[in-house]
This record gives sequence, C-alpha cells and structure tokens, in this order.
Amino acid sequence: MRANKVRDIWAKGGGVINGWLAIANSFSAEIMAHEDFDSVTVDMQHGMVDFQAAIPMLQALSTRDVTPLARVPWNEPAFIMKILDAGAYGIICPMINTREECEKFVGACRYAPEGYRSFGPPRGLLYGGKDYAAKANETIIAMAMIETRQAVANLDEIMTTPGLDGIYVGPNDLAISLGYSPNPEPEEPEVAEAVATILAAAKRNGVKAGIHCPHGPSALDKIKKGFDFTTLANDARMLSAGAAVEIKAARGQ
Amino acid sequence: MRANKVRDIWAKGGGVINGWLAIANSFSAEIMAHEDFDSVTVDMQHGMVDFQAAIPMLQALSTRDVTPLARVPWNEPAFIMKILDAGAYGIICPMINTREECEKFVGACRYAPEGYRSFGPPRGLLYGGKDYAAKANETIIAMAMIETRQAVANLDEIMTTPGLDGIYVGPNDLAISLGYSPNPEPEEPEVAEAVATILAAAKRNGVKAGIHCPHGPSALDKIKKGFDFTTLANDARMLSAGAAVEIKAARGQ
Amino acid sequence: MRANKVRDIWAKGGGVINGWLAIANSFSAEIMAHEDFDSVTVDMQHGMVDFQAAIPMLQALSTRDVTPLARVPWNEPAFIMKILDAGAYGIICPMINTREECEKFVGACRYAPEGYRSFGPPRGLLYGGKDYAAKANETIIAMAMIETRQAVANLDEIMTTPGLDGIYVGPNDLAISLGYSPNPEPEEPEVAEAVATILAAAKRNGVKAGIHCPHGPSALDKIKKGFDFTTLANDARMLSAGAAVEIKAARGQ
Amino acid sequence: MRANKVRDIWAKGGGVINGWLAIANSFSAEIMAHEDFDSVTVDMQHGMVDFQAAIPMLQALSTRDVTPLARVPWNEPAFIMKILDAGAYGIICPMINTREECEKFVGACRYAPEGYRSFGPPRGLLYGGKDYAAKANETIIAMAMIETRQAVANLDEIMTTPGLDGIYVGPNDLAISLGYSPNPEPEEPEVAEAVATILAAAKRNGVKAGIHCPHGPSALDKIKKGFDFTTLANDARMLSAGAAVEIKAARGQ
Amino acid sequence: MRANKVRDIWAKGGGVINGWLAIANSFSAEIMAHEDFDSVTVDMQHGMVDFQAAIPMLQALSTRDVTPLARVPWNEPAFIMKILDAGAYGIICPMINTREECEKFVGACRYAPEGYRSFGPPRGLLYGGKDYAAKANETIIAMAMIETRQAVANLDEIMTTPGLDGIYVGPNDLAISLGYSPNPEPEEPEVAEAVATILAAAKRNGVKAGIHCPHGPSALDKIKKGFDFTTLANDARMLSAGAAVEIKAARGQ
Amino acid sequence: MRANKVRDIWAKGGGVINGWLAIANSFSAEIMAHEDFDSVTVDMQHGMVDFQAAIPMLQALSTRDVTPLARVPWNEPAFIMKILDAGAYGIICPMINTREECEKFVGACRYAPEGYRSFGPPRGLLYGGKDYAAKANETIIAMAMIETRQAVANLDEIMTTPGLDGIYVGPNDLAISLGYSPNPEPEEPEVAEAVATILAAAKRNGVKAGIHCPHGPSALDKIKKGFDFTTLANDARMLSAGAAVEIKAARGQ
Repeated sequence: MRANKVRDIWAKGGGVINGWLAIANSFSAEIMAHEDFDSVTVDMQHGMVDFQAAIPMLQALSTRDVTPLARVPWNEPAFIMKILDAGAYGIICPMINTREECEKFVGACRYAPEGYRSFGPPRGLLYGGKDYAAKANETIIAMAMIETRQAVANLDEIMTTPGLDGIYVGPNDLAISLGYSPNPEPEEPEVAEAVATILAAAKRNGVKAGIHCPHGPSALDKIKKGFDFTTLANDARMLSAGAAVEIKAARGQ
Repeated sequence: MRANKVRDIWAKGGGVINGWLAIANSFSAEIMAHEDFDSVTVDMQHGMVDFQAAIPMLQALSTRDVTPLARVPWNEPAFIMKILDAGAYGIICPMINTREECEKFVGACRYAPEGYRSFGPPRGLLYGGKDYAAKANETIIAMAMIETRQAVANLDEIMTTPGLDGIYVGPNDLAISLGYSPNPEPEEPEVAEAVATILAAAKRNGVKAGIHCPHGPSALDKIKKGFDFTTLANDARMLSAGAAVEIKAARGQ
Repeated sequence: MRANKVRDIWAKGGGVINGWLAIANSFSAEIMAHEDFDSVTVDMQHGMVDFQAAIPMLQALSTRDVTPLARVPWNEPAFIMKILDAGAYGIICPMINTREECEKFVGACRYAPEGYRSFGPPRGLLYGGKDYAAKANETIIAMAMIETRQAVANLDEIMTTPGLDGIYVGPNDLAISLGYSPNPEPEEPEVAEAVATILAAAKRNGVKAGIHCPHGPSALDKIKKGFDFTTLANDARMLSAGAAVEIKAARGQ
Repeated sequence: MRANKVRDIWAKGGGVINGWLAIANSFSAEIMAHEDFDSVTVDMQHGMVDFQAAIPMLQALSTRDVTPLARVPWNEPAFIMKILDAGAYGIICPMINTREECEKFVGACRYAPEGYRSFGPPRGLLYGGKDYAAKANETIIAMAMIETRQAVANLDEIMTTPGLDGIYVGPNDLAISLGYSPNPEPEEPEVAEAVATILAAAKRNGVKAGIHCPHGPSALDKIKKGFDFTTLANDARMLSAGAAVEIKAARGQ
Repeated sequence: MRANKVRDIWAKGGGVINGWLAIANSFSAEIMAHEDFDSVTVDMQHGMVDFQAAIPMLQALSTRDVTPLARVPWNEPAFIMKILDAGAYGIICPMINTREECEKFVGACRYAPEGYRSFGPPRGLLYGGKDYAAKANETIIAMAMIETRQAVANLDEIMTTPGLDGIYVGPNDLAISLGYSPNPEPEEPEVAEAVATILAAAKRNGVKAGIHCPHGPSALDKIKKGFDFTTLANDARMLSAGAAVEIKAARGQ
Repeated sequence: MRANKVRDIWAKGGGVINGWLAIANSFSAEIMAHEDFDSVTVDMQHGMVDFQAAIPMLQALSTRDVTPLARVPWNEPAFIMKILDAGAYGIICPMINTREECEKFVGACRYAPEGYRSFGPPRGLLYGGKDYAAKANETIIAMAMIETRQAVANLDEIMTTPGLDGIYVGPNDLAISLGYSPNPEPEEPEVAEAVATILAAAKRNGVKAGIHCPHGPSALDKIKKGFDFTTLANDARMLSAGAAVEIKAARGQ
C-alpha cells in the first residue's frame, strides 16, 4: 500500500505542514498540491465541499506526492467511510467529547476486528494499491478534534482509545466553549492554557497533537512547542488575503 | 438598466482595478467579489472555466456591487452572446488582429442596427433590469485584445471600429509574437515600446486602454502611465503565492 | 450582521410569504429571488437538492434582498451546520416529535453556550458580515416541523424549548400520521383541528407559526387565521402548473 | 430507429406544441416531459444551458414519449453534431440569413452524401436504436431560424436548401432587425407582415413553418394561421409567471 | 403506480439479475440500462456517488424498463428517504445487525402507519405515478444487508421485521467479520457456511435472499442455490476488466 | 517539461496503445489510467464530454504515468487551445480535408512563430512544468484525422504541413464518405484500400499513422501493418460489452 507521508514524518519525529481546502474545485486543489505541503485536507465540515466535489479534489491531490486527508462534517460512519473509500488517507473528526464518541469514530476508520468499517474502497484501491484491505488499518490516520470544555475534561479517556492516532485542536470552537469569542490564535490565558493541557495530555498518552493555525508563523510556533501537525489557514483565506494585498498596492494604499 | 461601474469610473477619468477568475467555482468568485475590485472578469479563454461553470460565478459576483465581465475563448459569436445573455457586462476578446475581426467582435456585442447580437438574455434581464433591450448597447463594454505584431500594425484601423470601447493588452502573447519569451511584465525594449505604442494609439483614437498586470504594483504603474483598466494577475496566482508564503514561514525558511 | 427579513417582518407583526426551491439550479433560484418573496427556502429534504447544489442557489438568492432559508433532510447536526455555514439564515427541521429532538435541533443552530454549533462559517461571514460570530445566535431562525400525532401530543414541551423561534406545520405528513391520505390543504376535520391546535399552542407559547400551503389563496387564508409564515407550494409545482395551463390553451382545450 | 413525433404529426397535417428549456436541470426537464408537449427543445443559445448540462436533460426527456430537440448557440458544426450525438432528434439553428449558411447548417445534420456530419453517436444509438446510421438522415429534423431582414430577402433561396425540413421564426430578433423593440408577439405591421411573408414562403416551398410564441393562446392563433410548429415561451417564464400569480394571491393583491 | 419488476419476478418465483453503479455518471448508467438487467442499483455506499449525482442516474435508468434501486451509505433516514423521493424503487441498506436496526431501516421506507417516512416525493410521483402515496408501501422494496457475525446471530429476529422484503448478503464484509480477508466469492468453509445459514433463514422466514456476486457465473450458481436476487460486480469492474482484456490482445500478450 | 510518452515510444519505433474516454467522469477516467495504456484520449467530439468535465478527467489521468490527449469537437482554435491549456499533451482533430485546414489546426497547437496559440496554460504549467512555454511546441502532439474522400485526395498536401506530427484514420467516417455504412473495422475493399493508401502516404511523408480500432486484436493487426498509434474502442463500449457477457453468463445463456 502506498505510504502515508504523515506517518512517515511522524516516525522521524517531524512536524507535518498541512494544507486545507474549503473551495470545492479540483483545479484549486491541484494548485495547492503543487505547493510544499506534506498533506492536504479536504474540509467537508466547514468547507463548501460535499462528497461528490471531494472526489476530483482527492484525484487532484493524487497527481502529486502529498497525502490526502479529509475532515468529515460530523462523527457519522456514512461520512467517514465514504471519503475513505474515495481514497482519503486519514480522517479529522470534529467534536469528539467522550471516549464513547471517540470509539465510534475510530471504529468507522478500521476494518474488523479493530473497527466496523465496511469494505469496498473503489478509489482507495486505485490510490492505495491492491494490498489496501490488508494494510489500511495501519495506514489510515484517525485524528479526533478536541474543541470543547467537555473534551478537555475527558482527555485521557479519549486519548487512550485504541487505534486513535492523534488529536487535533480546533481553537475557535475551544474558545467559544470556554466562553470567549472565536479566535484562531488562542490568546486568552484560559484558552491558551487549555491548548497546553491538551498538548501535554497527547504527549502523556502517546498520541500525536495537531492544531489549526491562522498562518505560517503560528504553525512554526506550534511545532516548536511540540505539535506534530499544523494546518495553515485554508485556500479561501489565502485567496482573499492575496487579493487584498494586491488591490491595496494597485490603489497605492 | 443597472449601471456599469467600469463606464462610471471611466466617465470620471479613473482607472479600473479588475479581478480575474481562472478557478471555476462560485465560492472563490464570491470571495473575490468581497475584495475591493471595481470589476471582476471570468476568464473563459485561459481560465479553467466553461459556460456552465461561469453562470454561478456571475451570480456570485452579483451579490456585490462589482461589475462582472468575461473574457471569451475566441472571437466567435456563440461564446460572446451566450455569456452576455448570462449577465456579463462586458467582453474582453482575445487575438483581434484586424479591423474585420474587430467588427465581427463588436457586432456580436450589439443588437441591430449597431451589430448582430441575437436577443433573449434571460439572466441579463434579471441582473440588468427590464430596460435591458433598450440600454444594453450603451451599457455593455467591448474590449479587443491587442497582442500580436499584426495587431500592432493595424492599431488605428482596429481602434476606430464603431462601438469599440477599449483595447486590452496581453503582454505574454505580445512578447511571443515579437519573438520573446512570454513575460507578464514587459521588460524587453521592443515589447515595452509596443505597449507604449498601443497606449498612445488608444489615446489618439479615444478608446480606453487596459492591460493585464502580474501584481498590484505593476497595475499602479500602468495606471500612472495612463492605462484606464488594469487586471491583477488572477485567483490561481493569488492562491499559489499565498500558500507559498505561509508554507515558507511555517517551515522557518 | 445583515438583518434577517423574517425576523423584521415578525417584529412588525407581519406574515412572511416564503418561496420553496426543489429544483437544484441557481438560475431558477435567481428567478424566484426576483419575485416578491420575503424569504426563499432551499428544500434539502424533499427537494432534489443536496449541499453542493445548494451553495449557488443560496448565492443566487443573495443577489436580491430576500432572506435565504433551508429545510434540512433530517434532524442531524451535519446537515444543519453545513448549510448554516453556507449562509442560510434559518433552518426548518422536519419531524420534531419530542422536546429532546427539539433541543438537539435548536442546539445545532446555536453557538455555545446556547447550543453546540461548530464555528467556521465561510460563506456565512461573506453573506452575514464580520460580526457573524457575535450575532448569529440572535439572527438565525430555528423552526421545528410539527407533523405527527406524537408531536401534537408534545406541543408545549416542544414549543418551550429555549431558542426555538417557531414551528412549521407539514400538512401532508400530519394527515398521514393521523390516518388520512396526504393533503396539502387540510380538509379532514381531525387534521384541520390538529392544525388549529398547533396554531393555538404556538400563540400560547409565544413562538411563530408557519405552514406549508399549496397556493397563494391558501396562504392568504392561513395568514388571516394567524399564521406568521406561509410557503407557496414550490418551484416544481409552479413550473408544471404553468406549463399545463399554456399547453391547454395552445391545444384549444 | 425510434420515430420522430414531430415528423409523425407533420405527416398527419398537425401542428406541433413544443416546450422550451432554459433552465439547466434534469429534474425541471423531466417535469416538462410529463406535461402534454409533443416535443421539447433544449435551448443552448439563449438558455442557460451548455452541452454537459444538456445530456441529463435529454435523458430526462427520454423517460417519456416526447421528442427531444435542441436549439444550438450558433451555426457551427461542433455544436450541432455534438448535441445530435447526445440524442437530440432535431436542431433549430439561429440566424440563417443566406443559402450558404443554410447549406452549412443542414450539412452538419446529415451524414454523407447528404451532408458532412461525422459519425459516432453514442447516446444517439441508445436513444434512437441500432439502425441509427441508416435512418438518421431521414429522422433528424433541421429547422433554420428566419429572424433578420436579410433572411427575409433570401427566403426562397434558403427554403429550397436540400434537406431543410422547416424554418422557425424568431419574432424578437426579427423585430429588432426591422428596427423595432423586441416583441415576442409581433404587433407592428411591418413585423407582422414579415411573419406572414415567411409563412407564405414556407408553404410555397414545401417546408414546415415554426414560430416562437409567448403563451398558449398565441400558439393556438399561429397554428390556426397555418404554422406547423409552435413553442410556448419557456420554463423560466412559466416559473416566474406562476410564482408572481401565487404571491399576489397570498398578499391579497 | 408503475410496477416494480423485482416484485413481479419474485411473484413468479424467478431470480433477479441486478446491475450495480459505482460511477457517478448518467451516460454510463444509461448504457447499463440498455443491457439486460432486471434492476440496476445506484451504490451510494461504496460507489463514488452522492445524492445529486444519483438523480440523473435514476433518470437514465428510467429511460428503460429496468427497476431502479439504491444502496444507501448507512442506515440513516435522511439517506433513505431522499433517494426514495428521487424515484428509487427499493433500498439495500448496509450493516443491519439487530432487529432494532432493521426496524429503523424498514420504517424509513414506509409511510405511517407502517413506518415513519416523510411524504413529498417529487420525482417519485413523476416516475411512479399519481397513486404513489397510496401504493408506495407495497411497491418499494426494503432489503437489509446481512454482513456481520452479529447479524448472523440475529437472523430470525431481523428477518421477521414487519415490512422487510428481503436480505442481501455482503460477502466481503461477512468474510472480514468472521476473521478472513475480504472475498467476493466466499470460499472459506466458515464463510460459505454462514452464507448458507443466511439463505436457509431467509427461506424459513419467507423473505427474499439476495447476494453480491463477482461475475455472471457466480450469479448463476447462486440462483441455482436458491437466491432470489444477484448482483453482477459493478460498472467499474466491468470497465477495468474489459480494458485489460483488450490491452493484452493489442499487445499480443 | 514532463516527457510525452507517445513521442518517446515513437522515438523508439514502437506502436502506441491508446485508450479513449467517452464517459464524462473522473473516476472512470482514473480506472482507465490504471490499465496498461500508453496514452488515453478524452474524446470531446463524439464522447459525452465537454470542457468542464474534461478537466478532472485530465487530472485523473495525471495520477498515473499515462499521456493525456484530447480529440476536439471540431477544427476551431477555441476548443484546441482551451484543452491544451488544461494539460492535454496532444490533439486529435477531426475532419482535416485540406492543407489550409491542417495549417489552421496545427497553428492552434503551436506558439509563435510556429503557430498562433495564445499563451496562458494554467494547468499545463502544473502538469508540464515551469519550462512549458519553451518546450510546448516540441512536446505537444498534433494529429489530423483523415476520414473523407477529399482528404484522401489531398494526402501529401496535408501531411507535409509543417509541425504536423501524425494523422489518425477514422474508419467509420471514411467508409461513409466512400459510400458505405460506417464500420469500425474496414472490410470493403475500397475502404481498406483507402486506409492502406493513407498509411503509405504517412510513411512516405514521415508522419506517424494512427487509427481507431474496435478492439485489441484489430489494434495488434494494425500495428503489425505499420501503424504507430492505435485506439482500443472506448470506455463506453468496454462497459456495455463487459455487462453483456456477465449477464448472459448469469442467465445461463
């Protein structure tokens, strides 16, 4: 089975630089695939992307040596299994607040006996290779989003779920859950402390720690702090930011 | 009929800042519509965009007060009339090299007796208003691309075509036609001189001059030189450039 | 944040005239947006419309001053949150039969602490404005469909759910649940009585009452009876009815 | 080969009632196919419809016994041959002004030696049957639009083009060409007279006469006057008209 | 209501030959509809097909006298009800392991009082006919997939669920659940025995037995053994197998 | 610039085995890309494929080491240049009957001074590499279809067009043009002789000879006869043939 670059980088102790796709288009996905990301995630939760549009996006990512991941809209087996069948090499699942939810999530990513994923991955076999059935459980990555007060209260229970590869911090929702305005770069002490608590728990429990970052410098900072996986904003933000800069220059502002 | 911002700016002697869409997606188009462009052009020539995809892009542009334009793939009435019917408020037409070609182009943009455009603009009526038939000829903009040695030799003949509103310089093709490598910012003296010649001819003939620019500072420079319409690269370039910057920062490069 | 016309009309004691989209097309959606509706709902339950197709439909609605709503296919957070992220300004949720179900529904529409909606509304921010996070909870409308015998038995429990803005009667399903054939205009006394009971409960509990109507005169009648929100059939019915009338005339029938 | 209902009706001296699709959607197309049309035309000229969207529309029409036609965007072989390959059973071609243009058009609809259509109709074979190659030339209908002053001056030359089945009057463009505002129901004497002249020429030359009508009563009138083929507005008009009526009723206007 | 060919064949004691669509395209679906299948199933679980793409596929199937079915991605009412509304005449539901799950599944396929399906089938009415509401419960087929050890332990409980028409064996998942590699043609004695046990239970409980087969000879064998419904691989397999054969021949291999 | 496998095989004197895509879907395209083709052609002429659908198909082909080609619908620069911009590495152009037509075709494939192709290949740069502008003219392949009596009469004039890489025989159209029924495997002596004449002319003029074949054995035969490029039917035929075989087996026929 084709290797998972995220696992390879982790095996070497490195930090993954991940791209994020909210625009449902295979050309913009291919543009992103040509940048120097280690992995790129199709965001099916908050991105403007549904399953059908995700397929050519995953294909566009497959034109390059970048590992394709997906964030699913919710912790439901239908969403998880379908996008894995389409060739995603890992799932980031939102709003995992309890051990039970985490087991439901991880189980959907794994064939029996490790889980209850149903078999029949048509594009998975094309992208992964003919030994997909035998090696998918050890290749596919499952990352649970930690983004609520409740989740922070259940860190060890969640993180010790068998088969869980890592957790992923959603700073905006975490801030809201703790009573603050959403903020992609946690500044309030209570939120920053919660992030540190989550990171420490990940280290303690031997799972990888990922986090969503608003920009490159933030990602560099997070990797220095010990995070294993950082996402750089998303394609939509990069586009609007890029346009704004050029327009100001054109207007002499 | 809804006003054409490009005409309004020109009437005041201003220079238009134009966006450019090569990604066939209505969400990225809407993102661009929320930036401070005066007009945004759907590029159906070199963009990865066909008619069907252009419709929701034009609709996305219509959610904001930004004038929607289109570059057609070639000087053919089918392409020009269809996208006008879909609500484009102006056409940029590639490779106009002779007066005859220019007349064919402008005629496709105008109802009789000024031209031979066929009537029946379903989205044009929604976007433009119920007096579309009466006012389309004076509202819709027709800009001919000047981008070959042959066109440079025919400047006055082309620019005096009745109904032509402006010309649009394609620096890459102009450079190739003159024997150089494509370059979005003309540097070779012969190419730069050709651009200046075109600009002067536009001034002399009373048509507006537009030009494709690789970035904001270039557009500012062109407007200072007298250009009336400047395009800032395109969405695809903004996305890749934005991603590259953030990745380098994340990698500490 | 951009105002919600439905809320504004309700604040003035008026009755909302709502359109309904079952055809997955942004041009037909824009046609509907140009008619004199106060709000238009993308029907993702019984309409032939999925998430990806709904986005350009919402964009088409956004070209006009008409409030965009969505009916979700089922009471699941994934459906509710995704279409809110895409800019819907209210959710009509089918088959709410108990207080628990209603709490699950309303919670998916509200950020903490009022609910558990996850943050990251890319098109919501474009359409709503930059203060979306702060004002979404008070702007977005949540309407629970009352359409079963069980729901009628639980009216007060359902209607007192905190954050619920209104209920919406589905006459067809209500008729079936009470043992009759589906009928968009309730005629059987038991069904008509159930509708009256629901309306009275809405008034008693201070929530708005909406209902699906087969045509304009029915809507006028319902508003006179005290309903606050009426839907006029849908685009598919209007199209087939319009075609049938013209064909008969053409055939001299 | 499956019979062409339009030919069958003409063979019996009847007048065809034709539907018109400007909405690029297969569900709305199927709704129209369930109404009592003899034929339904996918409008690829002024409709918001391109080739890819037209395929499922033709498939939707094929679920019923209604003959599928297409209006092409312009008199170009690429457009004509592609949609014939997709199963259209007839072509309405805009802006035929000369004998030469008509020959180019008809030739694109016919295999050699009658024309120069290229062979390879994948959906044509599915819809038409295995004897498609042998019988297509006699089954497919070619109708040339007469809609300019120039065309009216060339009626006999155009109408005697071998293989031409009929002509189709476009009242809006004809009015514009004659110096009037577009009007789907010709009222100006000069336009009405031109329509009568065209009809008389069709009768004289033994080709069928079709015309675009704004509504059913107009179509009935035209058939009484001798027209063989009448189109009833289009789906977009039926939708907007239907919505307007219901909204007024709902508002008690 | 239009008859269900699967029911008709079963009523005569015959075995159904079913096609399977994993390619999200209406032209390939129409090709399959022209082959000699009794029914064709749109696979929304492992196929690369979502709701929006399934609609034109169902329309393509409706051009021929072949019964359209769908496999849903998971046992959730939203998926089941939406595709029934779009005209599917039967549902194959994966991973039914308990009586409770089976009741949830069957209930989603049936209007009250037999179930809790919500009414409003826009394409169902077009395809099925105007008496859809009255006859859908007896026409639509519900088949539960038996594909886990747990399901095999609950056969009689599952199969006696009121309204269940049949079961459908998924050999790959069954093999995995029993501890073997996935195999579309069960060879391991334990798996083959489980299949036989399921078949016997179906006969004992009076429900029909279906099974997924890798090719035609396997299906013939299964029908001889008493299965009532067999699927022949899918479109994707047929395409890749066909291509491989021709390439080898072309290469002289 | 990424190498063109077709050129590489030709440089070694080999015969290319080419696949052909008529189904507008990126998953079926990716399936084909995983078979052992040297090149795969997106058929935009007779295939059910337009530009927008072709993009993800080209991306799917780009996931493998198979060279992507396109057949355009007609000899028009708009079609040729757009699909080259999207990354096609060669064009097969139908109905080239004269030297003038061939020059128009080849010119559209080449940047000045060899031709008049317009510059701006967004996906071409991603797929081909950053030196695309410099090397495209020598990398992109231009093949003219010879498929009429007129073309056979002009073989040397056509084949000596500067920049033409090869010709491609369309047996069906050639048969029709010579007065026979279409036949993918030329059997009539006159047609077979014409094919031999074309092949000999290609050899004489030093251009490569391609031909469309109905199946693998035919391709093997053609390569043995000296053809340099053979296409194996298309995806649609492979699918229908594969389904027919399995159904017969399942029915014991």
